[in-house]
This record gives sequence, C-alpha cells and structure tokens, in this order.
Amino acid sequence: MEMLWSGWGDPAKAAPLPDTVTGLLRDLLGVTPRPGGPPALAAIEVPASPLTEEARTALAGSLAAEDALRDDADSRIRHTRGKSTPDLLRIRAGEVDDVPAAVVLPGSHDEVVAVLRACAAHGLSAVPFGGGTSVVGGLAPETKRPFVALDLRRLDRLVAVDGISRTATLEPGLRGPRAEALLNEQGWTLGHFPQSFEWASVGGFAAARSSGQASAGYGRFDEMVLALTVATPEGTLETGRVPRSAAGPDLRQLILGSEGVLGVITAVTVRVRPLPRRRVYEGWRFTSFEAGTAALRRLAQDGPRPTVLRLSDETETFVGLAQPDAIGATDAPRNGGCLAIAGYEGTEDETGMRRAAAREILLDAGGEYVGEEPGERWEHGRYNAPYLRDALLDAGAFAETLETAAFWSALPQLYTAVRDALTTTLTEAGTPPLVMCHISHTYENGASLYFTVVSAQGEDAVAHWEPAKHAANDAILASGGTITHHHGVGTDHRDWYTREIGPLGVRMLQAVKAEVDPSGVLSPGVLIPVR
Amino acid sequence: MEMLWSGWGDPAKAAPLPDTVTGLLRDLLGVTPRPGGPPALAAIEVPASPLTEEARTALAGSLAAEDALRDDADSRIRHTRGKSTPDLLRIRAGEVDDVPAAVVLPGSHDEVVAVLRACAAHGLSAVPFGGGTSVVGGLAPETKRPFVALDLRRLDRLVAVDGISRTATLEPGLRGPRAEALLNEQGWTLGHFPQSFEWASVGGFAAARSSGQASAGYGRFDEMVLALTVATPEGTLETGRVPRSAAGPDLRQLILGSEGVLGVITAVTVRVRPLPRRRVYEGWRFTSFEAGTAALRRLAQDGPRPTVLRLSDETETFVGLAQPDAIGATDAPRNGGCLAIAGYEGTEDETGMRRAAAREILLDAGGEYVGEEPGERWEHGRYNAPYLRDALLDAGAFAETLETAAFWSALPQLYTAVRDALTTTLTEAGTPPLVMCHISHTYENGASLYFTVVSAQGEDAVAHWEPAKHAANDAILASGGTITHHHGVGTDHRDWYTREIGPLGVRMLQAVKAEVDPSGVLSPGVLIPVR
Repeated sequence: MEMLWSGWGDPAKAAPLPDTVTGLLRDLLGVTPRPGGPPALAAIEVPASPLTEEARTALAGSLAAEDALRDDADSRIRHTRGKSTPDLLRIRAGEVDDVPAAVVLPGSHDEVVAVLRACAAHGLSAVPFGGGTSVVGGLAPETKRPFVALDLRRLDRLVAVDGISRTATLEPGLRGPRAEALLNEQGWTLGHFPQSFEWASVGGFAAARSSGQASAGYGRFDEMVLALTVATPEGTLETGRVPRSAAGPDLRQLILGSEGVLGVITAVTVRVRPLPRRRVYEGWRFTSFEAGTAALRRLAQDGPRPTVLRLSDETETFVGLAQPDAIGATDAPRNGGCLAIAGYEGTEDETGMRRAAAREILLDAGGEYVGEEPGERWEHGRYNAPYLRDALLDAGAFAETLETAAFWSALPQLYTAVRDALTTTLTEAGTPPLVMCHISHTYENGASLYFTVVSAQGEDAVAHWEPAKHAANDAILASGGTITHHHGVGTDHRDWYTREIGPLGVRMLQAVKAEVDPSGVLSPGVLIPVR
Repeated sequence: MEMLWSGWGDPAKAAPLPDTVTGLLRDLLGVTPRPGGPPALAAIEVPASPLTEEARTALAGSLAAEDALRDDADSRIRHTRGKSTPDLLRIRAGEVDDVPAAVVLPGSHDEVVAVLRACAAHGLSAVPFGGGTSVVGGLAPETKRPFVALDLRRLDRLVAVDGISRTATLEPGLRGPRAEALLNEQGWTLGHFPQSFEWASVGGFAAARSSGQASAGYGRFDEMVLALTVATPEGTLETGRVPRSAAGPDLRQLILGSEGVLGVITAVTVRVRPLPRRRVYEGWRFTSFEAGTAALRRLAQDGPRPTVLRLSDETETFVGLAQPDAIGATDAPRNGGCLAIAGYEGTEDETGMRRAAAREILLDAGGEYVGEEPGERWEHGRYNAPYLRDALLDAGAFAETLETAAFWSALPQLYTAVRDALTTTLTEAGTPPLVMCHISHTYENGASLYFTVVSAQGEDAVAHWEPAKHAANDAILASGGTITHHHGVGTDHRDWYTREIGPLGVRMLQAVKAEVDPSGVLSPGVLIPVR
C-alpha cells in the first residue's frame, strides 16, 4: 500500500476530529475552519523531468528490472519531501519545487553502488528514500542539480537470523511491521516501535538514529545495531563484526545518524530478543510534571526499568493527547495532574517481578496507580498521532511536534525555555498556542522532551511557523539540549546542528563525505553544509 | 610514584615465583633460568635529543611551568614504548631506538593545543602519554621525525560532579585509583577496573576503548563516556552534550578508540554510579569450558547480570591463573573442570536479589557452587598478573597475553583456531607453549576471549614470538573475531586492523586525520597507516 501523498499513512484510517476537540480548538485557540482541502494528485503540475537521455540510459543500465526507473508525475510527487507539517502544508498547496527528477528502485546492493556511480558520472544527486517519513527535511536536498529518489523498498529481505548470538540481518527497505512479522515468525522481536513504525523502514531507523516507544526496555535503534553494509560512490564499507571492540573508532556510529550523506545502508545486523509472552501497560498519576520526572529518574537510574516509560505534562494530560484515540474524552480534566504510562514486556515471571518492584518505587515517589485502562488506551493509539495531525490540519489548525533531550539536571530549565519560546513567538504573531510536552525516552543520565504545538494557522501557515520553530531551536541550544533526540537533522535542523557540533566537528564530517562521495552525489545539504 | 621502567608497576610489589611454578616451568615447558637481569637505568645509553634550538624554544614557549619540558635520559627512557612483553624484553636489553626527543608536561587544555601547534610548526610529532601502559605499541610512532611524549599527568583534576544527572567530568591524567578516590569521597564510583587500573589513566581509558573487569555490571569505558574535549592541531572539538541524540553521527565514538591520532583528550565526562555498599565475589565450577560458556551466555542474554562475570578454560583453571596470588596452590588440579567467578556489587537488597536469581540460572546450567573463597582470591589478585609476568620473564620464561571477541556462535571456533595457531607455531619453533584462556567480558550477542601464553624463551625472544603472534592475529580475523577487544590497535595490530575495517574504512579515518592534523603531528603510524 502507498502512503497517503498529502498526509499520513493509510487513507482508510483517517478519522475526523471529535466535536469536543473542534470546540476546544475554536474556543481556546480561535481556530476557524478553512475552506477546501488538498487538490487531486492528478491536478498537481509537475515540471518535466530534467534527466538527460545519457543520464537516463546510465541509470537504466544500472538496474536489472525494467520498471526500476520511473519518472511519471505520480511517482515523483510521492517522493517529494517528507511528512513534517510544513511538508504537508506545501504539498497540499501543490508546491512541488523539491520534486525528484526520477525515482529508482534498485534490487540489490550492487545496483545501489551502480546507481551512485551513474549519478556521479552524470552530474546527478541521489537521495536515499526508505519509508518517506522524514519530518526534518531529510528528503529535500539543497542543490541545483537534478536528483533521483533512491527508493529502497525492493531491498526487503530478512537475510539471516543467528539464534545463538541473537542477531538478525535485515535489508533496509523492510518497513517496521514486515520486519517484526518476519522476526516474530521465528520467535524474535526487534522491539523497535517509533510512532512512525507502520511506515518507516529499517534503513531509515539506522540512518536517522531512531528511538522507539519501548526504548526504556529495548534501547535506541543505534544501540541495537551490530553491523552495517554501506554503499558509497567509492565502493562498499562493511563495519561491525563483533558486539563490542577496542579496534579503533566505532565506524558503525559514524554511519548511524549520517542520514544518507555518507552512503546508502544496504544491510543492517541488529540484536533481537525473544518475543515477549506478556505485555502489560498501566497508568500512574503524579501531582506535577516535576514530581513525575523525579519518579522516572529514579527508575531510570536505580531500576527496575519498565519497557515503556513516559510522562505527559499537565497540559498534555489535560488535553488527553497521551491517548490520541480518546482525545478529549478522558477523565484527565476532572482529576488534573500528570499521566504516566509504564509498560512491561517479557516473560510472565520476569515481567511480574519487574512490575512489582517498579510499583514500589512509583508509589514511594508519590505516584497514584490508575489502572491498566490508560495504558491500554495509550497502546491502542500509539501510532495514531500523525492521523490526528491530518485531521487538525483539515480543521484549519496548525499542529507540529519537536523534540530534544538533556541531562536530568538541565531538563527543568530546558522545558521552560522551549515552552516559553513557542508560546511567546506564536502569541506575538497573533496565534496563541497550546504547548504540550512529554518525556518518552529515559536514560541513566537524562531524558527526552517531546513538544506538541497546536494553534490557529497564520495567513501563510508555513511562514507563520518558521519564527516559532527557530526560537525553539535557539532555546534548545541555549539550555543545553540537543537539536534532536530522535527526529533527525535533515535540512531543517542543519544550521543548529552545526552550532551543536562546532566548526571542527562539521569539518570532520565534511572530510569523511569528501572521501567516500567526492562528487557530492548523496543528499547535498542534508545534515551538513555543502563544502 | 613512577612506574618501574623495566617492568610493571611498583617495584616494591614485585614477588618471586613460588617454587611450584618454577618447577612447572622447568618440567612442562623446559624453561631454564637466564643469567643476568635488566641493566641499571643509568647504564642505558640514550642518543642526544634531536630537538633543534628553535623547536625547544617553541615548545618551552607553549608551557607555563619551567620544568614542563624535559630531555634528560631518565625521563626519555621512562617514556619509551609501553608494557607489552616485547617492549619489556627490548628495554631490558637496553634498546631505546623508540626514545622520544623530549617529554612535555602541559598543565592545561590550551597548553596542549599550543604544544601541538609548536610541533606542527617545527616538524615534530607528538605521542599522547597517559599511564604508559600500552601493550600494543601505541607509544612507538613510526616516523623518522623527532617526537615528543605528551605526558598528561598534570591534567589531573576532578572538574565537576553532577549528582542529579550522575555524571562527572575528569581530566585525562588522573590515574585509576586517584579518579576512584576523588569520586568515592562524594559517594560515587566509575566502576572501571581494568587489570591496568593502578597505573592507567582516564584519558587512556577513553582513547583506547578500555573495558574493565566489572564490565558485565558497569559496561565498557566507551559506554560510560558522555562528553569529550579534544585538542587538535586545528583547534578544539567539544563533543557530547546530552546522553543520547539523533543529531548526526556520534562523534564521541569517533574519538573513543582513536588512540591519540585524531587529537588529545583533555576532559572526559562520564556516567558515575553510587558507591556500592555490598561487594561479593563467588566461585562456580563447570565440567567444561563449553558448559561454562553456555551458562555465561544465559546470564548475559536473559539476566540477571552479575557485576563481574568470568570463566577460565580447563588449562587456566588447572594452572590456577584465575587467582594469580594463589597460582599453583589451588585445588583446581584435584577437581578439574573450569572455574567461573561471579561478582555482585550494589545495594544490600539489590545485590542479594540478583545473586539469588543468578544462582538459579547457574545451577540450572550445570554449575557447582564452590563458595566465596575463589572469588575473594580472584579479587585480591585482580591487578597482579602483570607482576607475575615480570617474575616469569625474570625466570627465563616468555609470557604474553592477547585477546579478541566475537558473536557467541563464532566463539568455539575462534577459541580453537587461536589456541591451535599459538600452539602449532611455538611448538614448531621448538618451544611448546602453555595456552590458557578466559572469558571476562560478556554481551547479549557475544563475548571476549583472553589468551595467556607461556613458553620457554627462544634465542631472540622478541623475534621468536613474532610468528606466533602473527599466526594468532590471522586466526582471529579468519574466525570472525576482532583484532582486539580491549588492548587496542597501536602499531602492533595495525596491519590486521586495516584488514578488519577494510580499505574504505581506513580512508575514512585517514580523511578525518588529515582534516584535524594536516601536518601529521599526532602519533604517526599508530592505528592507521600514514597516508
């Protein structure tokens, strides 16, 4: 199935907003319905492909399958940009200035190398394309050259499973559910469930350092990766042959997070774990975000660690966004406070013991147990927030998310600074926002903060949002946060990322890129500036 | 106190071999005492320092302290090479061809940068020097240029502790015991106890990706590092501002393991943990290395994980090397099998629960509990093996160690291949060896193998060992192992390391080096070939 070109996911799953929410938007934020909706896909005018005949011949010659080179309008529009709110607003407005010249669908590692070399030889760029779920402009290169979208969907095999070592080798085009299904058949799980799970790909998880909703138990995706095969214009890199080594810098960690600019990941060997026999999610209520944060910190530092651990702030709890399916229909407004979700996955015994021990800590930290229902609601709606955003946009609201992480000691100030930056900027622009936040990834030394912003749309919604986003980015850096904990850098965060790693860090990455991609084929302007 | 120049550690701690061992060496391996011993330090002839007056002036001008530039023979000899067995044999023979032109002792980050720039300007190389404990030739650059040993002992502060986030910032010149003492005063521990602990430095732990004896509980050193400050000839790199991030490649992991060739680490922020209230180490016996390995794998994969977890093979158990203090005096020869040590550190409650749960697994896996005595003996002698090596060399034996790691499924074949390579090569050379092995670092997906080789010395002991070492290295790569799990690459492993990471991996590292160190000042020939 193809992703909805003008929004998120499976068109059949789209659902209108409940009346309670429409009322809330109108009364609280002054959101007024906007007439019209996205145009028909066929009505969007796409310029003719700028591919030369020579380039087309070279690309076609790199690919065995006859249908592996496509430049019809439909294919090109479906590979234009990603799924950030500005991306959706622009594609809904028929803006296709970032459209690729063509889409290629290689069927093997060798075909990927051949495509990259053909691009180098013919002055083309190439943008690796997995699930197309980037929300940071990672699929919109900054280049005047024509570029091809290098769609990896045909590299979709489970290559090998080593049950003794508990590892599996996957191809990058496997999307989350298919990867899980193939592993589940053999009794294993990857345990990686980001919100984009249903559409995002294994290669994207690796290239963008994804972190899933069960990261407390399974770790981040970059912590699961044991080996990578990477295609570059200069040939192949194989990195990672053992779990951990002192043999030099960890080159796996140089490819993870490189967002396609250092090479195309064509195979990923990951740690797998036995499929859990028991899964239970439960709700806890804290009197304040501060109290809840302290409780999460205790579990993250002293254990036992739940598999899923998240905490919504007062506003997010009030709105009920912790359970997108039940938005506006929870008892949160009555009871106040902050809702936390703790989930436990594993064997029956181990899950029970861990849950009981964590319960003691959560009670001692002032938590009130509110039963399994909030946990089940969270679990049921865990992938639905992007559908909710589509409905909000349809209703004339603006909705976007952004996220960061910091050490525990920096978290309170970071939380306040980002909220203030968003609220002040949007209020001054005439559209006071609702800013919600949750913690969804915890570590011994710190945690993530994930913000959701909803407001009325400005006249030009994309331009209206930009100053608020920039103010939030500035606040993140000034408060000790990272410009992104799990969404990635892309082009949207690049100018803050370069401040985060400093000029020498940027030069180191540019030097590696120049070595493996001397013609600058791969995603120019993504992650780092073109040198 | 200064390290013994001709051997390991504190000269006062040297101990002669027990008669049982001397007998074993004679009867089993044909080791005959060698006359004489190391020369007096003062008797070693060191060539005059090749520093030009201009270079000397530039270096001195980079350093505030008057005594921070030294080129007396004593200082230079004490900074010649490291502590591998060939290093010791060569220095004991008075060979000082790798002697530095001078030793510099910068007192700050800025002085390190200034020294590197002075070296670049005057055609010198610089070799960062922490505890001087390299066993892989990491302190012997391959260059015709004069080089200075950049001794970091004066950067020895505990800079900051963040008790909320559980982090500490340490300077690189702090040696293990001092770093622990400073943290212990505030109730924290780093939990990093490699065999070189008493002499190795924090900067060296980071630069060489050290792994400690309690890695099962505390993780590897590279897993503890949260931020690094690095001085390069092109300026300063600050990397790591949050625990985990999706903001690009993890540049921390590019510096960790870079062994000084990409820069000099001048500050390290690490995760710390509460000082354990309870420490208990116990012994377990398995009928075979295979059975013990399977038991360790169960604990590493399904938990609970002990803090210390190691398993000696039959030969190492027989010789009693698992407890160097008690070598030749254990009951192992009577009872046979393989000795495992499991250690638990933490709070009273948590340690008790973890120990009890692990006990169930170990019993179920066929282990026989043999009480706390073997654990206490291991703990007491945990840093003494290098002293034992000195005594073996004094007795005319050859003794060296090497190590690797692999996925669990590859471990049996790797074990056999390395043993066979060592045994065959040394037997054919007329000195049949005793080859012992243990597992001391375990992961969900694999484990380390640590080999100890003892034999008679050949006529030229250094040259005699080389073919065996090379055969072991070849066997490691052919069997899916890494060329080093925790000793590092240096110059000794470089030619196998380049095979491990492949030509494109080498080029990526060379490109980074050329960017941050265009004049090739830093440790030429260490880790990667000079381009």
